[in-house]
Amino acid sequence: MINFKEDEKLHVLNHSCAHLMAQAVKHLYPHAKFWVGPVVDEGFYYDMDLGDDVIHDEDLEKIEKEMKKCSKDAKKIIGREVTKEEALELFKDDVYKLDLINGMEDGEPITVYTQGDYMDLCRGPHMENTKQVKYFKLLKHSGAYWKGDKNNKVLQRVYGVCLPTQEELDAYLEELEDMKARDHRKLGKDMQMFMFSDLVGAGLPIWLPNGFTLRRIMADYMMNLELNNGYVHVKTPVVANVRLYKTSGHWAHYRDDMFPEMGMDEDESYVLRPMNCPEHMVIYKSQLHSYRDLPIRIAEIADDFRYEASGALTGMERLRGFAQNDSHIFVRADQIKEECQRVLDLIIGVYRDFGINNYRFRLSLRDINNKDKYFGNDELWELSETALREVLVERNVPFYEAPGEAAFYGPKIDVQIRTALGHDVTMSTVQVDYQLPLRFELNYIGANGQKETPIVIHRAILGSLDRFMAILLEETKGVLPVWLAPVQVEILPVSPEKHGPYAAELAAALRAKGIRTEVDERNEKLGYRVREAQTKKIPVELVVGDQEAESHGVTLRRYGSKDEVKMSFAEFAEMIEKEIAAKSVKA
Amino acid sequence: MINFKEDEKLHVLNHSCAHLMAQAVKHLYPHAKFWVGPVVDEGFYYDMDLGDDVIHDEDLEKIEKEMKKCSKDAKKIIGREVTKEEALELFKDDVYKLDLINGMEDGEPITVYTQGDYMDLCRGPHMENTKQVKYFKLLKHSGAYWKGDKNNKVLQRVYGVCLPTQEELDAYLEELEDMKARDHRKLGKDMQMFMFSDLVGAGLPIWLPNGFTLRRIMADYMMNLELNNGYVHVKTPVVANVRLYKTSGHWAHYRDDMFPEMGMDEDESYVLRPMNCPEHMVIYKSQLHSYRDLPIRIAEIADDFRYEASGALTGMERLRGFAQNDSHIFVRADQIKEECQRVLDLIIGVYRDFGINNYRFRLSLRDINNKDKYFGNDELWELSETALREVLVERNVPFYEAPGEAAFYGPKIDVQIRTALGHDVTMSTVQVDYQLPLRFELNYIGANGQKETPIVIHRAILGSLDRFMAILLEETKGVLPVWLAPVQVEILPVSPEKHGPYAAELAAALRAKGIRTEVDERNEKLGYRVREAQTKKIPVELVVGDQEAESHGVTLRRYGSKDEVKMSFAEFAEMIEKEIAAKSVKA
Repeated sequence: MINFKEDEKLHVLNHSCAHLMAQAVKHLYPHAKFWVGPVVDEGFYYDMDLGDDVIHDEDLEKIEKEMKKCSKDAKKIIGREVTKEEALELFKDDVYKLDLINGMEDGEPITVYTQGDYMDLCRGPHMENTKQVKYFKLLKHSGAYWKGDKNNKVLQRVYGVCLPTQEELDAYLEELEDMKARDHRKLGKDMQMFMFSDLVGAGLPIWLPNGFTLRRIMADYMMNLELNNGYVHVKTPVVANVRLYKTSGHWAHYRDDMFPEMGMDEDESYVLRPMNCPEHMVIYKSQLHSYRDLPIRIAEIADDFRYEASGALTGMERLRGFAQNDSHIFVRADQIKEECQRVLDLIIGVYRDFGINNYRFRLSLRDINNKDKYFGNDELWELSETALREVLVERNVPFYEAPGEAAFYGPKIDVQIRTALGHDVTMSTVQVDYQLPLRFELNYIGANGQKETPIVIHRAILGSLDRFMAILLEETKGVLPVWLAPVQVEILPVSPEKHGPYAAELAAALRAKGIRTEVDERNEKLGYRVREAQTKKIPVELVVGDQEAESHGVTLRRYGSKDEVKMSFAEFAEMIEKEIAAKSVKA
Repeated sequence: MINFKEDEKLHVLNHSCAHLMAQAVKHLYPHAKFWVGPVVDEGFYYDMDLGDDVIHDEDLEKIEKEMKKCSKDAKKIIGREVTKEEALELFKDDVYKLDLINGMEDGEPITVYTQGDYMDLCRGPHMENTKQVKYFKLLKHSGAYWKGDKNNKVLQRVYGVCLPTQEELDAYLEELEDMKARDHRKLGKDMQMFMFSDLVGAGLPIWLPNGFTLRRIMADYMMNLELNNGYVHVKTPVVANVRLYKTSGHWAHYRDDMFPEMGMDEDESYVLRPMNCPEHMVIYKSQLHSYRDLPIRIAEIADDFRYEASGALTGMERLRGFAQNDSHIFVRADQIKEECQRVLDLIIGVYRDFGINNYRFRLSLRDINNKDKYFGNDELWELSETALREVLVERNVPFYEAPGEAAFYGPKIDVQIRTALGHDVTMSTVQVDYQLPLRFELNYIGANGQKETPIVIHRAILGSLDRFMAILLEETKGVLPVWLAPVQVEILPVSPEKHGPYAAELAAALRAKGIRTEVDERNEKLGYRVREAQTKKIPVELVVGDQEAESHGVTLRRYGSKDEVKMSFAEFAEMIEKEIAAKSVKA
């Protein structure tokens, strides 16, 4: 996905396009005044005061038409530096520009750019001529408070993009359409996977039956995989005494991201947890451990709560309450590399099983010019940074290094993915931590009989189940593979009355094998029912009529395919069972 | 279990025993003063001011010995009524008795009871002679604030029981011992099922790996059973906007039992939920429903939070945070009976599968002399009370009626069980509710095309998973049936070195079938390892040596049995798989 802000050439082009739009708007709304028109990741926008006029969908086309005219006019775009006095004089009738000029520091260079009858205060740079700004599209509009303050006037904001050629513009717009269709918020609603409710609260997801089925499969898959890899599971409370977070250090360093505390028994206070690491430390500490017992891998699908600003909340991508697929692995220093390798292997295997390919690894290291910022000794940092890098190299996965991006308590590997909304988000993470075990005074008895401090590896694979589901919907466009589909097989009797009993018999046989099966025996035409099953993105449809009932067969149709395959029911059942089992994991 | 307070004869006997104990204490501690000595469910106690003396374990025997003497003295126990003035004069040196006398209402009859050298203010009645109070046991002692106020002096409280014969006393004491061994707090700790942490918070359970395994099996069993019975599952947030609970009425009527609210966005406030009914109402309301869609059964294993007083918290029996196996069923009035029948059948089946027999049904009805207290019209109450009674009668289960115990919103059936701690607690519940759907303005389109209001059936079967686990441990004394055991099979190679590979081969084969298997290949004597497996209450042990390895066989030993059975591995695997599958449910 193009980033218009980061790409230098496109940045200039889009900035000039914002001016072109302003020029066109000024022609159509002579009383228009302009606030700011920046380039953003997705293109540009301009915030405008149109008096009492409000922009509607149909106005965008009108403005585009006028922009084309301005472009054809082929005016030179000329910048020149002015003094502050000159600038104040030039824009003396424009409260918005005066506000900008007065906000500038003394001595800061001030430039104005002119193209034909239009002049704007602007830092530049710009294209040379309006004729170069030719292939653009206005995308959407909204209201926006002046300076983002809701006590201020609402300005009209119009978004657009500009590209160097018609071909590139077309390709980009197609990609946008595709992303809109992939947006998990739309898919999740259409597929009845989840919902939000104002009455319940922003950023607090409600998983509907279809979504819960998927969630349960995801959770079972992950837990079974963990069991097979030597993890144990626990369940710990989502609310805890503030003292726990004082011990862990979250209260001192993370409090702003936490929900408000609740005053309880006498002088005690409780709080919803932002992370579940402290609880896992408490579990480790509740028993004695020997060096031979390590690694100890404690895992939990844990509800966590963070106080995100309401404006930052985004579908299932960014929430106030979510469930982490979390684990804390307690290791000796000599086990760091092997354990991180195991985690990396798990990550790669899980992504393969879920069919997610569009991700990259980021290795976050400390800033070696700024070692004081970090906790722990040089030797440990060397050891674990080297271990993490070697693991990535040996597994031959593409990664990039991010110096200075390590946590203060240790280096980490993150898995990044770009969502349909264009956000770069973290899914999996592997973090080495030297500090938390010390804060909780954890230990194990070493080979020499002395107490030693373990190191903790924080690890999440699906990340949050909520976000993973969002990414899964976006990556598959909602066409979930059979093993994950809430309804796996839909049986359509040609005549519900006549073939209903046979359909019911097959459904019962499939359900007995644990295959999620439905029968559509409504009195609707077969074609209508087939189309509906496709709309619902059910991966497998079985049509059964006279011929099938007689031969104990089925006619199979896969989602997205028009091929119809006839086979015996026994053959089908065996095939589909194998297909599902290939991805399901048994503990 | 005997209830000494409810049984009239035992009540009098134990009350007289409290006096006997006081007499003996007065002989041993002449400065003793006495507060109250009531009969309670488990026997009697007396709160006593012994000055600076404190009761220790060894003192109980000493007091018992003196009590035996007093009993042998065979003094008549004589009661007589006195005037208030006379009473004040009689006890003029006893601040405690004076406090009691002054607390009495004017005209209330005052009686004193005398036995030999001991006199007490008492309502009676009593036995005739101290020789009748012969078979007793002092059980424990503790400190207790006078009048339960922690600003007051700590009195010495001694508990005891008295029975009519030595045989009955012995049997009762044996039962007590048995209950102590069954106490889920002890079993849960020994079996590493759960723990509590002061740092995390009182009443907030931490499920350890063994406990989580059991919990997961319980939850899977229940959810699969629900799916097979037409339920759908959701997951809803544990924290919600206070407005939700204002809508539901909880904020007005249940706030004292809720956690403190959290001030969030501007004037909004959030709170941990005490129940998840409101969230399920929101889900129902998010879609249109026709009369043909009902019943709609929405289920969730839902974490709920209640602000219990810290003194009321009891192991997993009474918590501040717990997970309900909850469901809300939306029905038409004509579906109440059939749906309650289905729920009752589920309850009976579940208890049978878990091997819990020791329970009773309670039918809670409204108080018909006080109809104003209840919500909804007579007709609905008649209909649903009759339906619930008929369901119980038709299923031929023993139940008792509790008039006046209905919720204000409808009648209910509860399943009660007595825990090892002697508490009468509710596990399952089925409650008819006319009111909540109205508060949320729920509706469905009736057969006539008009909007109708559905009725809600609240239903919990396992009750809380936490409490159910506690009861399961107590009922089975920790010897879980194979399908529920965290470790199902332990394989013991006679010589770890020689037979280890064969043990590992069998373990892999069993694990591939999803059977939770461990191998104990420590270099310890076989007898030692066998005993340890028994201590851990593992249901199945397989001993494998030369003979077994050659014949691909096993020697099977069940928990609690000394029988050893030789069979082929294939035979064993088939047997154990069937045994597990008989209780596991596949959705």
